[in-house]
Amino acid sequence: MQRFKLTIEYDGRPYCGWQKQNEALSVQECIETAFYKFCGETVETIVAGRTDAGVHASGQVCHVDMPRQTSAKEIFGAVNAYLRPNPIAVVDVEEVDDNFNARFGATMRHYMYRVICRRAPIALDRGTAWQVYTSLDVEKMRMASAYLVSEEKRDFSAFRASACQAKHAMRSVNDISFEVIPEKFTGQGTEIRMHISAISFLHHQVRNIMGTLKNVGEGRWEPEYVKEILESCDRNLAGPTAPAEGLYFTRVEY
Amino acid sequence: MQRFKLTIEYDGRPYCGWQKQNEALSVQECIETAFYKFCGETVETIVAGRTDAGVHASGQVCHVDMPRQTSAKEIFGAVNAYLRPNPIAVVDVEEVDDNFNARFGATMRHYMYRVICRRAPIALDRGTAWQVYTSLDVEKMRMASAYLVSEEKRDFSAFRASACQAKHAMRSVNDISFEVIPEKFTGQGTEIRMHISAISFLHHQVRNIMGTLKNVGEGRWEPEYVKEILESCDRNLAGPTAPAEGLYFTRVEY
Repeated sequence: MQRFKLTIEYDGRPYCGWQKQNEALSVQECIETAFYKFCGETVETIVAGRTDAGVHASGQVCHVDMPRQTSAKEIFGAVNAYLRPNPIAVVDVEEVDDNFNARFGATMRHYMYRVICRRAPIALDRGTAWQVYTSLDVEKMRMASAYLVSEEKRDFSAFRASACQAKHAMRSVNDISFEVIPEKFTGQGTEIRMHISAISFLHHQVRNIMGTLKNVGEGRWEPEYVKEILESCDRNLAGPTAPAEGLYFTRVEY
Repeated sequence: MQRFKLTIEYDGRPYCGWQKQNEALSVQECIETAFYKFCGETVETIVAGRTDAGVHASGQVCHVDMPRQTSAKEIFGAVNAYLRPNPIAVVDVEEVDDNFNARFGATMRHYMYRVICRRAPIALDRGTAWQVYTSLDVEKMRMASAYLVSEEKRDFSAFRASACQAKHAMRSVNDISFEVIPEKFTGQGTEIRMHISAISFLHHQVRNIMGTLKNVGEGRWEPEYVKEILESCDRNLAGPTAPAEGLYFTRVEY
């Protein structure tokens, strides 16, 4: 068996998320169908992060074991061809060692969250960013985010979805940074991008952090209150879950 | 009659272009329908640039004469509400003088063209950028574009669509500049943005210029050849028409 690592980009809008479901179309099903058309056999994908419905990816990673001799180049060409016209692309294929595991071998996962601040509805970025109707104080969001970043693990119960299936909520968020995109890149309004990195995340953790930091950016909460939220371990104290449409799975390190 | 200037953003993908047509949905029809729902009377829009099918806008401008007393604020709220769920947004409304004319009063029109250079299919930017499969030499494209820029009018017949209805092809392109977007903004691949400004453009002029400069960027043509193309006034010498999906009408000056 040859094992291959695939880097995947997708527009999450048409899909129920990464994972296969009976009643709805998933990214995983599209990719596994493309593999089936390519090699005539069922190929299972093991993925770094099972993104939710509507969440996008520019650097999702999965691995596959191929039932017959092939090459990275052949997979790249064939699977991309069979993926058409889905907005899913294999951006890189690499042959890897048998002990590479896209899910369990990840040493760092990186997400990005896009917010567009403006009063008018967004047309060009609809479904690919979270629109907020007021401006946000990015400096305060930075200060607030610092309370969440640490090398040692902390209990992130306050930022965890009730449906989260992880055994515990102990996680370390290794980095959060903000980028403000000049207006000339986006046309109207200001775009704020939050970059966040951790070895692994809880269900909805990034979106719950974003929803909380948005309340800080609006001036509703002081940055220090985020420390209190984290320490409370109480999901009711944190902000709302930011919508899926602004979230991008950008990169995985091994 | 009160006259209002509207600044409009739209995703061109679902539309046959700006202008109303019998058999297909246009941006103009969506906006005029929203006005009809708002005030119960037919309101005609006069536009700065009639974009083609699939072309996007972040700063299209039109004006309307309102049949009854209203305000910029009321139009902003109501027309945006009635435009839902179309990917069209009124980003600004301003009451203007009776002699303001969105079409004939424009003193400068600005377009932007997005190119993404990479081998893998584009998923996140599908329909909103032109994908080219090789890297482009932006420095050479800059050199070539300089032959097209001048204050005085030149004959742009070589860059004019055969269906162009303008009386003559004498135009001045006042500025062309290039911007290379760092890879961190785009995920995979390099993004090149061409910004181009003129008082008015011929049909397909921007897309024909882009298609020509792409041939230069690929190394197929030397920059100096673009001077020869312009002087030939022969459409057959210029490059192909770049696809609509990469083109954005970004701003109009009055």
